[in-house]
Amino acid sequence: MSEFVVTFEPHNKHVIVPRGTDLLTACLRAGIFLSASCGGEGLCGKCKVVVRKGAVKSERSRLVSEEERKKGVVLACESIVESDLEVFIPQESIETHPHLTAESEECAPDMLPEEDLPFKHAPMVEKIYLELDRPTHEDSISDLGRIYKALEDRFKTMSVSTHLANVKHLGDVLRESDFKVTATVGYKDGAFEILALEPGDTTRLNYGFAFDIGTTTVTGELIDLHSKKVLATRIAYNRQAGYGSDIITRIIYGSTPEGLEKLSEAIVSNIDEMVEDMAEACEINLATVGAVLCAGNVTMMHLLLKIDPTHIRKEPYVATVTAFPTTPISEVGIELNPKGLFFSVPGVATYVGGDIVAGVLSSGLYKEEDLALLIDIGTNGEIVLGNKEWMIGAAASAGPAFEGSGLAFGMKAVKGAIQKVSIDEKLGVACETIGSDKPRGICGSGYIDLLFQMAKRKIIARNGKIDRGLASKRIRKNEYGYEFVVAFKDESAVGKDIVITEDDIENLKRAKGAIYSAIISLLDKVGKKAEDLKRIYIAGGFGSYINVESAVSIGLLPDIDRKLYAYIGNSSLAGARLSLLSREAFLKTHEIHKGITYLDLSSEPRYMDEYIASLFFPHTDMGRFPSVRL
Amino acid sequence: MSEFVVTFEPHNKHVIVPRGTDLLTACLRAGIFLSASCGGEGLCGKCKVVVRKGAVKSERSRLVSEEERKKGVVLACESIVESDLEVFIPQESIETHPHLTAESEECAPDMLPEEDLPFKHAPMVEKIYLELDRPTHEDSISDLGRIYKALEDRFKTMSVSTHLANVKHLGDVLRESDFKVTATVGYKDGAFEILALEPGDTTRLNYGFAFDIGTTTVTGELIDLHSKKVLATRIAYNRQAGYGSDIITRIIYGSTPEGLEKLSEAIVSNIDEMVEDMAEACEINLATVGAVLCAGNVTMMHLLLKIDPTHIRKEPYVATVTAFPTTPISEVGIELNPKGLFFSVPGVATYVGGDIVAGVLSSGLYKEEDLALLIDIGTNGEIVLGNKEWMIGAAASAGPAFEGSGLAFGMKAVKGAIQKVSIDEKLGVACETIGSDKPRGICGSGYIDLLFQMAKRKIIARNGKIDRGLASKRIRKNEYGYEFVVAFKDESAVGKDIVITEDDIENLKRAKGAIYSAIISLLDKVGKKAEDLKRIYIAGGFGSYINVESAVSIGLLPDIDRKLYAYIGNSSLAGARLSLLSREAFLKTHEIHKGITYLDLSSEPRYMDEYIASLFFPHTDMGRFPSVRL
Repeated sequence: MSEFVVTFEPHNKHVIVPRGTDLLTACLRAGIFLSASCGGEGLCGKCKVVVRKGAVKSERSRLVSEEERKKGVVLACESIVESDLEVFIPQESIETHPHLTAESEECAPDMLPEEDLPFKHAPMVEKIYLELDRPTHEDSISDLGRIYKALEDRFKTMSVSTHLANVKHLGDVLRESDFKVTATVGYKDGAFEILALEPGDTTRLNYGFAFDIGTTTVTGELIDLHSKKVLATRIAYNRQAGYGSDIITRIIYGSTPEGLEKLSEAIVSNIDEMVEDMAEACEINLATVGAVLCAGNVTMMHLLLKIDPTHIRKEPYVATVTAFPTTPISEVGIELNPKGLFFSVPGVATYVGGDIVAGVLSSGLYKEEDLALLIDIGTNGEIVLGNKEWMIGAAASAGPAFEGSGLAFGMKAVKGAIQKVSIDEKLGVACETIGSDKPRGICGSGYIDLLFQMAKRKIIARNGKIDRGLASKRIRKNEYGYEFVVAFKDESAVGKDIVITEDDIENLKRAKGAIYSAIISLLDKVGKKAEDLKRIYIAGGFGSYINVESAVSIGLLPDIDRKLYAYIGNSSLAGARLSLLSREAFLKTHEIHKGITYLDLSSEPRYMDEYIASLFFPHTDMGRFPSVRL
Repeated sequence: MSEFVVTFEPHNKHVIVPRGTDLLTACLRAGIFLSASCGGEGLCGKCKVVVRKGAVKSERSRLVSEEERKKGVVLACESIVESDLEVFIPQESIETHPHLTAESEECAPDMLPEEDLPFKHAPMVEKIYLELDRPTHEDSISDLGRIYKALEDRFKTMSVSTHLANVKHLGDVLRESDFKVTATVGYKDGAFEILALEPGDTTRLNYGFAFDIGTTTVTGELIDLHSKKVLATRIAYNRQAGYGSDIITRIIYGSTPEGLEKLSEAIVSNIDEMVEDMAEACEINLATVGAVLCAGNVTMMHLLLKIDPTHIRKEPYVATVTAFPTTPISEVGIELNPKGLFFSVPGVATYVGGDIVAGVLSSGLYKEEDLALLIDIGTNGEIVLGNKEWMIGAAASAGPAFEGSGLAFGMKAVKGAIQKVSIDEKLGVACETIGSDKPRGICGSGYIDLLFQMAKRKIIARNGKIDRGLASKRIRKNEYGYEFVVAFKDESAVGKDIVITEDDIENLKRAKGAIYSAIISLLDKVGKKAEDLKRIYIAGGFGSYINVESAVSIGLLPDIDRKLYAYIGNSSLAGARLSLLSREAFLKTHEIHKGITYLDLSSEPRYMDEYIASLFFPHTDMGRFPSVRL
């Protein structure tokens, strides 16, 4: 089979691909993530590239104009490599903007573990140093029996087991170490499994990774399981976005074995890179990592673990698995100590996954005396309402806007992201960025502030339209419509003006409407009102900050006493971290996932009405927001 | 690397081996099992072969005479292949005699399971048919959750788990079968693990193999786990004998990785062949076999599972493992359904293994009200004394004589073996063979009868020497000493006279002495006498028969009321079968193995005196055998 060299400019990256490969796949192999929100179906027209040299076989598309065609523009997803190629990738085709990469970036942990864990410190994979008695004629129990006995005394259980591979040279290991060994013990399916036995005391070298696997972003932490310290944190866009930005597109793509393989590879490559990056930064030997624990939405976990996701999108939308089996890391394909274990926080239902269960754990909602609410604003807005007696959960299709995806200058909450905005009466804009760097884009909390400030200064009307009549150089018309300049080129780090467009505002309005209406519908379902809430936990990838006043004022959150709100950051990652550090916490997630009743909003008649009514800032019914003056 | 063709005659077998291979290894590769009781160390001189064509590099050995050397005789273990060869193998070099093969032979089950199992019928790997409700919007539990729930209801436990691999296409499996599936569930480490899920009701197709892995013989059964029926039984000599007939030689041989690999391969090839043979005979698809359960001595289990046996022969003789981890069949290397599980009955100590624990289970000794004894006469004589309150166990180095090994015409209890003998006053011999065939050799029960009859007719003196003065054509001198003809050439199936030699008698005398003295030492240790016994179970590979009168009369068993004796056949295999058919029984073996105290006879001062005193027929102290008149 012939193979061709494809060179991508301006990246100057080369890949060798077999004849017949499409250009979208070739880009992904080169590590270039094109926009392809339709999942490579030739429908969205976002993956335009310019073929400068060489031949491709390309479908004609109405999304490529005659003029573009003459310049060599093709849709990457519809073009087949037929020779060596030189391809130019316009910036606007890169997912989603040049400052948004799928590479991992350092970010500050949202919520550091408290000095004292709220659960007993007993990690999912524990290292236990054993000083055993040497056998004698009188005490001639077998080597493995001796180890089991010591561990069973320790764990107060008879359920200790191990793999055959670990005992093959155990006789030597024990004698060469004078019967002083460290057992690496994993907690699996209610029992303890010896994963490794090594000479001497190595208990200090025990590390694990916690991950929050989201549709749009992936966040990871390296944790010292011995000292309970978070050593590093990384965030990246989920590389699966190259195969479709929304979850349904990915499910369709993953419904063939080849597609599923590619989606799994994409997310595994995210994880591998973050793992390597954090381990390198902290000078950790990957052989000392015994555990990876993920909290992720149910579809992401299917795609990661290569479980056929087909049935998720078919009536009645049932997942194959919501509580994923504990598995050797090697079977997941992550490049780590293959003896280590891969754990997942169990989910409730197809659209209320392990991420939200982890959030219920870390927020403590499951033990609240009074009525409380958890809102996790990610690609979906997931919501759990309840207290220590009962919980009900639902998901709103909010889209990834608050994660910075799908917006002109949206970005993750990493260095350079605008996270706070205020606008003065003269429409002067003051921004605060994460790390106090020059701005590269705007993250979720920045957009929330921005919308509120724009509404307050009447730059936008209650329907979100920019006031064309206002005299300001910040307000201008672009190719597609109106936009507002948040930071001018000379103030920005990206060499151009940072703007918010009317499309962005529309997008954000729909996202906030979906979340608000879900909250109200859920309260309504159990006969409660927003005023009955005694605690509201807000979670999401907002970095270290969200302005509750802004969020209420734009109608994202109910208009109740601001003091009842608590921003808890990435509660999914925090729950994963707790579960990794404590078996007690992990077991609690198994109680929680069984204790939450799932409400399918799409079958709730009131939900759509609520949603439509919420597509204003803050709402069509201003009576719902008595304290807000816009 | 150059390779050579070695042809073996009279077998007309060819193998290709690399330069540098020794002839003993070449023979084993050709499936020819030479005598090599020293384990290929050049010490026993039993592996003589004749090089007819081609060149070998051979060490000079005092065990090969000058005359032999001129004829091309070499020790196979000391000769390196240097060219293509033609090698002749004399019959006497074949392990142990031409009628003893390492190929599996059909044998009648020793003890058929009773109509009603003494334990609850719940096999270690069970197939469970589930008719699940189809999911709806109201009942939207995940596919795997639905299966777990059904199984947890069934097993009254929350401990059901599965492997990731089993869920990847579960969505399709359930829907294509209209949610009617069969779960294959294995019992592992105290919990239930789903091994496979398949459409429809396949509960009737569930098979397992039970094995007794002995140093000298391997016995196996194919069991229908659904109907509880034994479908086939096979017995073979352990092919490891090609690397040394005694256990210490094999431990030494297995102390290098290469040696261990070869020993494991040898026994795995035994098992594979028996499995294939039984499956073919019963027309069973091997994919429907979910479980293999072994009862074996501890060293054999080390060698099978490739666990370094080095420390077994070093002070204080501690095994690496006595309770072996449950393991996927694939990891053991047996060619069977890789999803199936391999279980072992746990052992007590290095020389009181899972075979004897299985015997305690199947005999019911562990629940006796009164004092009882189990004697398992295999390559070691293993003995357990006790009742439902306490048990003590020991091993006597009896050697494999009663298994028919190491004797001129010894053989397993299979078709053609002389199992009963009587000698009239005129020294006429009447034999009964298994299957009433012409005799091929003599099995353990035959030798016991033979010794008693020879002693009774004064053919042998109480010290075992043949009376040279008796006028009978049956008594004659051979190259090495005297022998007694049991069956003349024309009566036999092997084309020559079947004899018992003085060497054989010496061998058998030492074996019976070792066992008797162990019984007495064990009784003595707990302050009991033979007269205190209320039940004695005799187990071993004697086929369907052993004459207790003969056994007592030669001094193998204590001289007490014959009615107290019960012959229970291969109690190890029977225990393996029970454990395979019942989790309750398997769990009971775990109680038993912890409940038996091990007595190391070699550190008992009285044992050696007892042994020396028992090297007469029946004993030096005739007062011990008041009912015996010899």
